[in-house]
Amino acid sequence: MLDVKLKRGPQVILPKDASLIAGFTGLGAGDKVIDTGAGSGWLTVFLGNIVGEKGHVYSYEKRPEFAELAEKNVKKAGLEGVVEIKVKDAALGFDETEIDLVTLDCADSDLLLPNAFAALRKGGWCVGYVPHVEQAKKFVLAGEAAGFFHVRTIEAIVREWLVRERGCRPENTGLVHTGFLSFLRKP
Amino acid sequence: MLDVKLKRGPQVILPKDASLIAGFTGLGAGDKVIDTGAGSGWLTVFLGNIVGEKGHVYSYEKRPEFAELAEKNVKKAGLEGVVEIKVKDAALGFDETEIDLVTLDCADSDLLLPNAFAALRKGGWCVGYVPHVEQAKKFVLAGEAAGFFHVRTIEAIVREWLVRERGCRPENTGLVHTGFLSFLRKP
Amino acid sequence: MLDVKLKRGPQVILPKDASLIAGFTGLGAGDKVIDTGAGSGWLTVFLGNIVGEKGHVYSYEKRPEFAELAEKNVKKAGLEGVVEIKVKDAALGFDETEIDLVTLDCADSDLLLPNAFAALRKGGWCVGYVPHVEQAKKFVLAGEAAGFFHVRTIEAIVREWLVRERGCRPENTGLVHTGFLSFLRKP
Amino acid sequence: MLDVKLKRGPQVILPKDASLIAGFTGLGAGDKVIDTGAGSGWLTVFLGNIVGEKGHVYSYEKRPEFAELAEKNVKKAGLEGVVEIKVKDAALGFDETEIDLVTLDCADSDLLLPNAFAALRKGGWCVGYVPHVEQAKKFVLAGEAAGFFHVRTIEAIVREWLVRERGCRPENTGLVHTGFLSFLRKP
Repeated sequence: MLDVKLKRGPQVILPKDASLIAGFTGLGAGDKVIDTGAGSGWLTVFLGNIVGEKGHVYSYEKRPEFAELAEKNVKKAGLEGVVEIKVKDAALGFDETEIDLVTLDCADSDLLLPNAFAALRKGGWCVGYVPHVEQAKKFVLAGEAAGFFHVRTIEAIVREWLVRERGCRPENTGLVHTGFLSFLRKP
Repeated sequence: MLDVKLKRGPQVILPKDASLIAGFTGLGAGDKVIDTGAGSGWLTVFLGNIVGEKGHVYSYEKRPEFAELAEKNVKKAGLEGVVEIKVKDAALGFDETEIDLVTLDCADSDLLLPNAFAALRKGGWCVGYVPHVEQAKKFVLAGEAAGFFHVRTIEAIVREWLVRERGCRPENTGLVHTGFLSFLRKP
Repeated sequence: MLDVKLKRGPQVILPKDASLIAGFTGLGAGDKVIDTGAGSGWLTVFLGNIVGEKGHVYSYEKRPEFAELAEKNVKKAGLEGVVEIKVKDAALGFDETEIDLVTLDCADSDLLLPNAFAALRKGGWCVGYVPHVEQAKKFVLAGEAAGFFHVRTIEAIVREWLVRERGCRPENTGLVHTGFLSFLRKP
Repeated sequence: MLDVKLKRGPQVILPKDASLIAGFTGLGAGDKVIDTGAGSGWLTVFLGNIVGEKGHVYSYEKRPEFAELAEKNVKKAGLEGVVEIKVKDAALGFDETEIDLVTLDCADSDLLLPNAFAALRKGGWCVGYVPHVEQAKKFVLAGEAAGFFHVRTIEAIVREWLVRERGCRPENTGLVHTGFLSFLRKP
């Protein structure tokens, strides 16, 4: 059970979105994942915790300082045997094949789609996370051009509730937007 | 990677909610879970897929006909070694201890909270899923009375988007409510 | 066209909710309205602007200091001929009859329902605005007990969007809850 | 108080959106409005009811059969003295000036923005209602090019609640999207 306080940067993907990426693709123990733009490694660790020792997460991060931070967070979570941080530009292609899930969470994610397609097994998933509608559109259309089937694009509004003896109501303010999640599948 | 079309009943928990239960508790490979009110076994299989062979899901279902259906779905998903369907009333107590997560998704979930507390390890999670606000309140207050710390209660609105060359917009109609998820933790 | 910057207190009803109160009851020029708990007079002025010179808003506010503030805001909006601020406790009953709309936006709104019923014309509306679910329930059940027909209870999530050449997306944070609006109608 | 059952077409603007158009612009008794694409006249009647006898709604509808339907609905609502249905193409320009509010709710609304700008008084509002994000963007950018100030673009999710003695919860399914409302103002 993941229970580590990791250092998080401001642009990191949130638990609600990470949960939906894992849940809507059916990610489970033993799966093989490629994660791009590791950043602080938060999503990497989240995914690594699910796939466990029988699975593997290959995390591509071209900026050495972020790769180092991600590495630290992976160790803190005790996932050294599961997660591999690769200091490498995903634009140059992925080294792996027969992957179950590729997550693309970086600028120009749409340019990485042919590489993702090549790395995935048949039936494997590619999920893009972008903040703007135009980016989601670009991602989906590029994905279809690369041979993917577009399963769905979603956004999630999660409201926190105050639950108290004296009365229940949602919190007054909160996150109303993080990003759009687009789910593509290799036929 | 979970990819089975299971037979689902009408009241079954949805992927968005199952995703948040797993994601917000940090569920991962190797964890031990108790699931109540298996019903068709959909949530059971979802959780079993995440915890994998090194983990275990004990699923309590007192109605033999549902237990049988759940059993079939578990086999279909190839999770016989991971999931155990127990034809037993959760109100009589759980046989296990040192559990990481207990999910309560049945009428009178609040009455099962002391049993959940006893079965959990320190730091373990108990998540209740109920459709009405009053039930969420009852669940949270009963949880606090049983010794739990109330971490959060949430609800998720997930919108499906149409993403097309000619224009992007959310679907016009959709689910606007399923249930409230309350996350309790054993101190 | 209303275009006055009024002084607003923290608990005041927001434009989105005021809009729905007016729009869902079909409020228009010439209508007669009773408003309770004037506070700063924001809702009073909003309603007065719609009903205009041929209509009337009777605004009950028992706290003299708030009545004075509301009075100032009414003058600022040029609605002296339309709105009447009454320094009077609504619990003691309303002086008017044949009213089209009564808005109840104060603690213990449910206790004022019989008074609202008496003041309304047949087919007239009573709208309650409360932050908690329990209050909405109390309001609706008390309304039905007082002879009203419960038409609907709603809540509105209004998202502000960033619309820019370089990309469109909802604002990241915002209001996710203000209150529940319950619409009752005199048969 | 508006209380007429009008015949409504499928694409008509909904009460929640009409409410926000009126409420967020501060529309009131005595205001002058231009409405385009009358369709069945639902929005026309809604606006006419608010501005009343001292105000006026000029409703442009180039398709004679729709103008006729709108005319009928206006009569049914008793607003003949307030609303004028003009069988005329808005693309050819508006005949009026010093207007308080122009609503654009038709295909190619963005092309009508210079005409709207010319018809409005200083400080007047132009509101566009479109279903797709790309249309909202086009509308806002064309509005800015025409000299307008972009105040806000919003979308509203209104949830209906079941409020009952035995438990409160939002309805399970409902509208999750209708359109984006863009508010422009003449400086």
